[in-house]
Formats: sequence, structure tokens, C-alpha cells
Amino acid sequence: MSNLNVTMSRRLVLAAATAAPVLLSATSNSTAQEAAQSLPSWNDGPAKQAILDFVRTIVSQVPPEDRIATFDQDGTLWVEHPVYTQAMFALERVHTLASQHPEWKDHEPFKAVLANDEAAIAKFSERDWAEVVFATHAGISQADFQDIVRQWLGTAKHPRFKRPYTELVYQPMREVMDYLRANGFKTYIVTGGGQDFVRTYAQRVYGVPPEQVVGSSIATTYEIKNGKPELMRLPKLFFDDDHAGKAIGIDLFIGKRPYAAFGNSTGDREMLEWTGAGEGARLKMLVHHDDAEREYAYGPAGGLPDTKVGTFDQSLLDEANAKGWVVISMKNDWKRVFGS
Amino acid sequence: MSNLNVTMSRRLVLAAATAAPVLLSATSNSTAQEAAQSLPSWNDGPAKQAILDFVRTIVSQVPPEDRIATFDQDGTLWVEHPVYTQAMFALERVHTLASQHPEWKDHEPFKAVLANDEAAIAKFSERDWAEVVFATHAGISQADFQDIVRQWLGTAKHPRFKRPYTELVYQPMREVMDYLRANGFKTYIVTGGGQDFVRTYAQRVYGVPPEQVVGSSIATTYEIKNGKPELMRLPKLFFDDDHAGKAIGIDLFIGKRPYAAFGNSTGDREMLEWTGAGEGARLKMLVHHDDAEREYAYGPAGGLPDTKVGTFDQSLLDEANAKGWVVISMKNDWKRVFGS
Repeated sequence: MSNLNVTMSRRLVLAAATAAPVLLSATSNSTAQEAAQSLPSWNDGPAKQAILDFVRTIVSQVPPEDRIATFDQDGTLWVEHPVYTQAMFALERVHTLASQHPEWKDHEPFKAVLANDEAAIAKFSERDWAEVVFATHAGISQADFQDIVRQWLGTAKHPRFKRPYTELVYQPMREVMDYLRANGFKTYIVTGGGQDFVRTYAQRVYGVPPEQVVGSSIATTYEIKNGKPELMRLPKLFFDDDHAGKAIGIDLFIGKRPYAAFGNSTGDREMLEWTGAGEGARLKMLVHHDDAEREYAYGPAGGLPDTKVGTFDQSLLDEANAKGWVVISMKNDWKRVFGS
Repeated sequence: MSNLNVTMSRRLVLAAATAAPVLLSATSNSTAQEAAQSLPSWNDGPAKQAILDFVRTIVSQVPPEDRIATFDQDGTLWVEHPVYTQAMFALERVHTLASQHPEWKDHEPFKAVLANDEAAIAKFSERDWAEVVFATHAGISQADFQDIVRQWLGTAKHPRFKRPYTELVYQPMREVMDYLRANGFKTYIVTGGGQDFVRTYAQRVYGVPPEQVVGSSIATTYEIKNGKPELMRLPKLFFDDDHAGKAIGIDLFIGKRPYAAFGNSTGDREMLEWTGAGEGARLKMLVHHDDAEREYAYGPAGGLPDTKVGTFDQSLLDEANAKGWVVISMKNDWKRVFGS
């Protein structure tokens, strides 16, 4: 699957630390030097400076309970190429389940998956992906699904970097999360990916507890099995937390407008618009993947290769420039990409 | 509207403090005496004792991040008779909006509402209530809706007690919330009522921030109006947070199983079942309204008058007895019902 650049809609790839209370004055004594030391993996430059300036302003103006920061996940906090991690999980799970579904070997889209036909998979329609996702994500309980995800993440490795996916987290972004939390922010993940998928590792990997992970979800139903209630996963989309869904999801789950929002693709546009429409200082940042050597380079904004996975198109760059959103150059702003 | 006992489905009446982190050991030095002083509005007895015993056990066994407590609202935290507060809001808002809808005076169910025809309103079908709710809760932005709710709550008074609804909160339950939070619990409201309605006052009245209010909701859509994004409320149910929906909502919004759950009606059954299915000590409590003098008496469990608003039926009482859920007698367990 090494160079698979899958055409997929986030809509269907569902799958895809509690903040310490800090008094308004708690960080007012922190010096600029201390602040700068909080982001050791960032090069000096406008992106790092925007974060430092923003935090300095907020801690003096906004009470801690309103300090909300939202982060997209795929492509913003961890690697999303060549294909979303959760899509990789779904494809691999088709192989795992194939013995229980002998009909799959003659039935698309499963036939293509089982044959590792990358060209065919790259052309999957939304409907094809829906079939793959529902076949691999539904029909079991929430608890069983999350156990399966945890097991898979414990062994699966990224095709290029040969490391577990949960190690392919952007160290500079982890530092931003830590820095915001140290300044009284509550950090949320707001992902087009599957809420239940991300919740299995968000606490361990990002320091974000389950209740601060907002994502796409499939419907569940409450059933009594052997006298015990279970929440069973249905093959049906419940909430699509992407594009406008991110603003809707933030309102639905948090009920407060963020002061800071971080994304990397057109799916994050409305989250940044919604954040920026608030009064006072608001930080809106977009990670631009312009570093083919250390990670990947794609856009098509900035003349980089086009992609269907995490598209950052020219209209998003135009809006960012017009509205003062800060574009993070992975190549220039980050001293290093991954943790050790 | 004083004795209106409205037939309504919670499904359609959508409308209807951050916990301080406490170390595992933080409360282990608290004495039984100190604990008892935390619930001054409770009479000594099995209900109060169950709360004290439970908290003593949990603080020694469960890390703070897992200490989740969920509270139904109507009938558990505040008065729900003669009719849910949010239904009262909807009915009164029909009057307010009538001048913009001249057709309503000849069109049911609005005609009955405008005529204050309590007998007719009491017989409203689910469809009637849906019309009333959507006409009064949709078609405006989230921000405008919440402003309207805040204004209404500032002036509306309960027909019997002649006090603002937000003062008709059960003081003993406020003490339970405070006591749990002082012991590291995160307290959530999980209501069949409208999430956006309850979020307007939950912080002020219960010390529960918006992100810890889970409720029924209607769909919203993201629209750019005069260059600014707005979330507009649609006349369409999005999530029904009642009965099985409460277990589903808890998993969806919190992603952790509660250690304690408090309810008062059949709509809370699945929340208590879901809570009780967890391992270790779990507290499940039901408020029984058996106090016609200080508040109301209804069941029909316990031979009390039947009701369609907050029904506590015999099957719920049987299940409570079979599973060791604690039934709170408002009459016997509470020294006082309301705060001063």
C-alpha cells in the first residue's frame, strides 16, 4: 500500500488531560523566555510568534473556562499520507474478516481489497468506502470495536516510516497542546475521522481524554445481551464531523466557541471560520505539508502535488491570507517533525 | 396553566464547574463527620448513607479522571410538574409569536394554545407537540435562541410556587453535586430536555458548564449571513437523549461509563442500567416524588397518582428493588426541598 493515494470522502471514512485550572493571573509572570522554551521544536518565525503572542493575550483577557482550543487530527496532529490511518485499519480488517465472508472474494469492493489492487482501491467511490467501513466498523459492540482498534494499533506500522502510527505524531503540535494546557486551555480533538477510533489512544498519545474527542460517528443501539446492556454499532452514519460538521460538532459537544483552532485541509475551513468569527484574539492556524523529505508535500496550494487525502487547495490558502490565518510551513517552521 | 398535566413525549419536547482535580488520596483524610456535613439538607437514612459510603469507596479506588456522575434534570434536579419547564416556554412563546402568524388562530394545535385550552393541550399528540416545539425552537440561530431562553427564564414564574424556575432547584441534589465535585467527580447533566435550553443556565444554577450538558437536540446548519457564520436551528430532531438515548448520549459525549447516575422516571432506566453494568461500586439513585405538600406526589409507583410527566411506574420500582438502586423519598430523605 506504500504509495496508495486513495480517493475517499471523509464523510464515509468515519473510521477514519483535563486542563489544570489556572487562574487568570497564573501565567502573567511567565517571561517571554519561558514561553519560547515551551515550543522547542519550533523555529523562530511568524508561526511560533503568533502562538506566543496569542497565549500572552488570552491569559490576561479570557477566563480559563472559556479557553478552548480545537485540533483537527489527520494531517494536523499525525501523518495522514499515503492514506488515513483509519482507512488503513479498515482495509487490513477486510483481510482479517475475509474467512468469515467467503462471498467477498467475488464481490467488489472487497475483491479489490483482498487482491491488494491499489489501482482499484484508489478509484473507490463513496459507496465503495461506505461498504468497506460499515463491514469493518459495525455489527459489534462499542467495547469490542475499541478493543480491536487498540490491538491493531499495537502492531500495525506505517508503510514508509515503519513505525506504529501512534508514534507518527507531530512533535511541534504536541508542544502546542502542552503549552496551551499549561496556560489553562482545554484541548479538544475535532476530527473528520471516527470518534470511537481516536478515543482509544487520544489520552495516551495526545493527553486528550475521551470526552474531549469530537469526531464522526456511526449510530449505536442499546441492547440487553445475556442480561447486560451493550451499545451495538450499526452500519449507519450518525454524525459527519467534517467541513461544516466541525463547527456544528463544536457547538454540539462543547457549546463554546474556540479561541484557537488548528487544521490542515479544506475539511477544517468552517472550524477556522467559526473560531475567527468570535470577538477578541482568536488563533487560526493551518499546517501546510511542504516537506517531502521529512514527511510529505501536497496541496495543491503552493504549487504542491494535488491529493484527495487532506487537500489544501488554493481557495483555502486565499481565505487564510485574506483573513489572517497563519499557515505553518512544515519545512520552515518545524525543527523536527516527529518525537524520538 | 396551573394544573395542566400535559400528555407529551419527551422525544418531541426537545425543548422541553469544572471539577477541581483531586488526587486519589486527597479526600482520604476527610472524616465521616466532615462528609456528613456536606449534605446538610439530607435526613440521616439509607439514601444519605448510600451516597457517603459510595464516595468513600470511590475516592480510594477510582482515579479522578474516571469519576463521572450523570444527573437527569427534570424531576431530578428541578421541578417538572405540572409540566416540563421547556414545554411551558414553548407554549408561552406561541403567544409571543402569534402576531407574526395570524394563521395560527384558526389552526390546531396553535389555536388551542392561544385559547389557553388546557383540556385540549393535555390531549396533544406527539405530532401536535412537534409542531409547537419546532415553531418555537427552530428557524433562528443558536445564539438568538439562547438569548430568548435567557430572557424568558429571567421573567417567567412557576404557576404554583410563583418563583423563577431556576430557583426551583432541589437543594439536596445541589449538595450531592457539590459533594461529588469536591471529591473529584465531573458532574454531567444528561437530560431528555433540550441541550441548548439547559446550557443557558446550567453553569449558573448547577455549576455545570455547557460541555457537560448532554441533552436532546435539533439539527443545525452552518450558514454564512452577512459574511458571518451562523448555526441555524432546523425543525428536525437530531438526537433524542431519553430512555436508551441516555446511555447512547453518555457514550457519545463522554465516552466513559458513569460511576454514579441519578434519575427519577422511566426515561432514566437505561442510564441507570448502563451505569450499574460497570465493575466495582456504582451508585444508582431515583428521586421519588412522594411529597404533595412541599412539592408533588406522582408515580404511579407506590400507589401515587399516575402522570404523563416524569412517570415513575411500578416496573421501574421493581427493577430498582431487584438491582439495589436507591430510591430517594422526597418526603422522608430531604430536610428541605428548595434553597432559600
